[in-house]
Amino acid sequence: MLRNIHSQEPNRLDVDLALFGALGDLALRKLFPALYHLDREGLLPSETRLLGLARHELDRQGFQAKVGSALKSRVSAEDLDKKSQERFLARIDYLKIDFANPEEYALLRDWREGSSRPMIVYLSVPASIFGEICCNLKAGDCLDEKSRVVVEKPIGYDLESSCEINDVIGDVFPESRIYRIDHYLGKETVQNLIALRFANPLFGTQWNQNHVSHVEITVAETVGIEGRWGYFDQAGQLRDMVQNHLLQLLCLIAMDPPSNLDADAIRDEKVKVLKALKPFTGEAIGRDVVRGQYIAGTHAGQSVPGYLEEEGADKASHTETFVAMKTEVANWRWAGVPFYLRTGKRMPEKLSQIVIHFRQQPHYIFDPDQRSLAANKLIIRLQPEEGIALQVLTKDSGLDKGMRLRPGPLHLDFHSAFPKTRIPDAYERLLLEVMKGQQYLFVRRDEIEYAWRWIDHLIEGWQAHELPPRRYPAGSWGPVASIAMITQDGRSWYEDY
Amino acid sequence: MLRNIHSQEPNRLDVDLALFGALGDLALRKLFPALYHLDREGLLPSETRLLGLARHELDRQGFQAKVGSALKSRVSAEDLDKKSQERFLARIDYLKIDFANPEEYALLRDWREGSSRPMIVYLSVPASIFGEICCNLKAGDCLDEKSRVVVEKPIGYDLESSCEINDVIGDVFPESRIYRIDHYLGKETVQNLIALRFANPLFGTQWNQNHVSHVEITVAETVGIEGRWGYFDQAGQLRDMVQNHLLQLLCLIAMDPPSNLDADAIRDEKVKVLKALKPFTGEAIGRDVVRGQYIAGTHAGQSVPGYLEEEGADKASHTETFVAMKTEVANWRWAGVPFYLRTGKRMPEKLSQIVIHFRQQPHYIFDPDQRSLAANKLIIRLQPEEGIALQVLTKDSGLDKGMRLRPGPLHLDFHSAFPKTRIPDAYERLLLEVMKGQQYLFVRRDEIEYAWRWIDHLIEGWQAHELPPRRYPAGSWGPVASIAMITQDGRSWYEDY
Repeated sequence: MLRNIHSQEPNRLDVDLALFGALGDLALRKLFPALYHLDREGLLPSETRLLGLARHELDRQGFQAKVGSALKSRVSAEDLDKKSQERFLARIDYLKIDFANPEEYALLRDWREGSSRPMIVYLSVPASIFGEICCNLKAGDCLDEKSRVVVEKPIGYDLESSCEINDVIGDVFPESRIYRIDHYLGKETVQNLIALRFANPLFGTQWNQNHVSHVEITVAETVGIEGRWGYFDQAGQLRDMVQNHLLQLLCLIAMDPPSNLDADAIRDEKVKVLKALKPFTGEAIGRDVVRGQYIAGTHAGQSVPGYLEEEGADKASHTETFVAMKTEVANWRWAGVPFYLRTGKRMPEKLSQIVIHFRQQPHYIFDPDQRSLAANKLIIRLQPEEGIALQVLTKDSGLDKGMRLRPGPLHLDFHSAFPKTRIPDAYERLLLEVMKGQQYLFVRRDEIEYAWRWIDHLIEGWQAHELPPRRYPAGSWGPVASIAMITQDGRSWYEDY
Repeated sequence: MLRNIHSQEPNRLDVDLALFGALGDLALRKLFPALYHLDREGLLPSETRLLGLARHELDRQGFQAKVGSALKSRVSAEDLDKKSQERFLARIDYLKIDFANPEEYALLRDWREGSSRPMIVYLSVPASIFGEICCNLKAGDCLDEKSRVVVEKPIGYDLESSCEINDVIGDVFPESRIYRIDHYLGKETVQNLIALRFANPLFGTQWNQNHVSHVEITVAETVGIEGRWGYFDQAGQLRDMVQNHLLQLLCLIAMDPPSNLDADAIRDEKVKVLKALKPFTGEAIGRDVVRGQYIAGTHAGQSVPGYLEEEGADKASHTETFVAMKTEVANWRWAGVPFYLRTGKRMPEKLSQIVIHFRQQPHYIFDPDQRSLAANKLIIRLQPEEGIALQVLTKDSGLDKGMRLRPGPLHLDFHSAFPKTRIPDAYERLLLEVMKGQQYLFVRRDEIEYAWRWIDHLIEGWQAHELPPRRYPAGSWGPVASIAMITQDGRSWYEDY
């Protein structure tokens, strides 16, 4: 079924949203506040009902109170008016269920009794129990041909485990009704990238190896490992951040223009990018990839421990908390254009940004000592604030400056361009799209699997070469080798901190 | 002699500036205030002297007082401090001279006695006496091989009269020491165009018929004919505005990239454009050019008279006060790209702007009813405020907007981008360049003459076809035919008023 994603029509139906893991962190901190905002803006149809499911003994009022206090801490006072809040909480119900017990799913079936609304099952629970929940939903006769399922990362630990998870979900739901969330895809700026690339000929015609010299993608976190050392240490930064967020961003930057905006047209193009990602082999593993692990340092003026000194740490761990890499998309559009990726914990700033560096022109006629300036950059920032800036060069306006150049950004950050616009949280957009039955912002099974294939291959290379991570002090931009990697190409990580 | 125009070095020497017509409007309103600003910013070397020449009986103090009161009305109080003003006025001297009397030039020679500074002769007088002043300067032994001359438009009325004027100046000064002013070239934004085109690959690589669909140049005045009906009626808007300002802007937009920034490298490219301008022949004269003459209407809420009702008007005049045209630069870069030019008096707004319209891409994937939006425009504004904006399309940020597009300008107006920067008046830049001996912002003889050749040809066509001007009410954007001219190409004059 094709759906028109550019339509302003209220392409929505009432739904029943059944949220498994309703007392979890994600549900209370992100999902209910997002649903509240949707409701407040008139985007939840009047009959839409929200059901929390968890194993805790709690009644409806008790759960509504929990959601109410979550809203209080997550929604600005300005947006949290009494009327909206009351209307919203009245939609909410709660069921105590032991997810592992098939018989208890009758409670859900009873709750749905008589409802013709499609049910959206949101699995905000560990992937290890996706399978049993799906089976029990099916066995308990809770589903019909309109039911959808939403799942969160991580979907597996490698290709094999990811396939297993996708298989158990796929046994119950067809791909067209599975919504795999990568919350980066819900960010306003990420969707803006689609408009920017395909609605603007100025960029669209230059989006290739003839005009782009290189691309940078940085996702830097300031946090370390807080109370989840054991979990993180099994994964590492490559699996935890690159496999999903960074590769998703890379796909949206690198994909060929889809013929239309249908979900599968877009996702077909993303898959083509993943298939064209050059695998790291032989020397490239040591040369083009830098693994790092933070040691003690400072953050915001405070001393902070190293990764191996965190609570619960295994001192012998070789897990990376930082990874930088230089990769390439081996196709006609991008051959020869390096994509520099880096992501790490305990960086100096929280920063997610993409920088498209356009090539310099072959001839240059301005002041020779300004030659390095004479290029354009498109800077797409997701965090801390969302926005887009284009760096152009103008004449320095001082009377005595002759024809000196000055780099000046043309800013398009949403706050200053549209000051009255609240930037919706990624989950608002994503929940709305699920309710509309629109999949273009969700990750298709083959995307996940091709991403794992590439990641697995790299990890095998690491293991074969027994490469330990390089040290970097907490509060720095990663191991020196990650700077050297780009510097030796005559470039540098874009800095505008 | 090559001079490095991008250098920040103080490529200046002390000069003696001799200003003929020192009591005229231009001198008092523009030139002395501009010189004052240069002095205040430390850009006039300490020994530089300024000499006013006019036929009125006045002594040095009297002239200084006149300049002082001109400064008072033209320079902001903030910039007019006592110390700067005293230093500036102390540079100023005055000579009463009958320009027509060769013997009186001895006064100037005596004034220069012992000065080794180059003399800059600024002819702020009617072109009809350029010749006699130049001859008298030469005969009176006032000049040497470093003397420069600055002349203002209008340089002639057609090719023939322009050649005569250029000949008499050229008999005395070599081309390399003649500075013909078109004050548009001194505007910050116009120079910025050079940086924008040649330092920014994003624009530089798209600056041709593959990527640009059309170009608009508008120079709209709100004034009518104020007390100079007789003068203007001899010329008309085509000679008064198109031959110089609009064609200069067109040249800077259309020229091929010069190999370097030397004055003649740039001017060679400008001349190539003028030579490639398609002449209007046959039907094109009626079809692609619209002449207009304003009738009574309103300006700023006030009734204003028509052109034929102005003081001193000849009721039978067919002189145009408006002209719009669709022309083409017939070369490899621009073939097939219309340049729409228009200029008129008694328009609703004072507006000088260039709009580069980039082509749409052949395929379009967004909301069909937004198709016409999907192009980029670069807007270069000279008046009322100088600035550059790039119109790009982003995703409309409302949650319920789907993939709707929104045009948003990326602004680079100098005031908001660099709030502390005073935008210098065009004459400041131009006077500084004359003093530096740098000609790239001045019009070479062949530029003027090729421009006249094209203009003369058009006027001959008008005369042969006996085309009377079309009427337009004062306070409107010109005759309806000027709208129709662009509308029938499926386009419209860019509006952002």
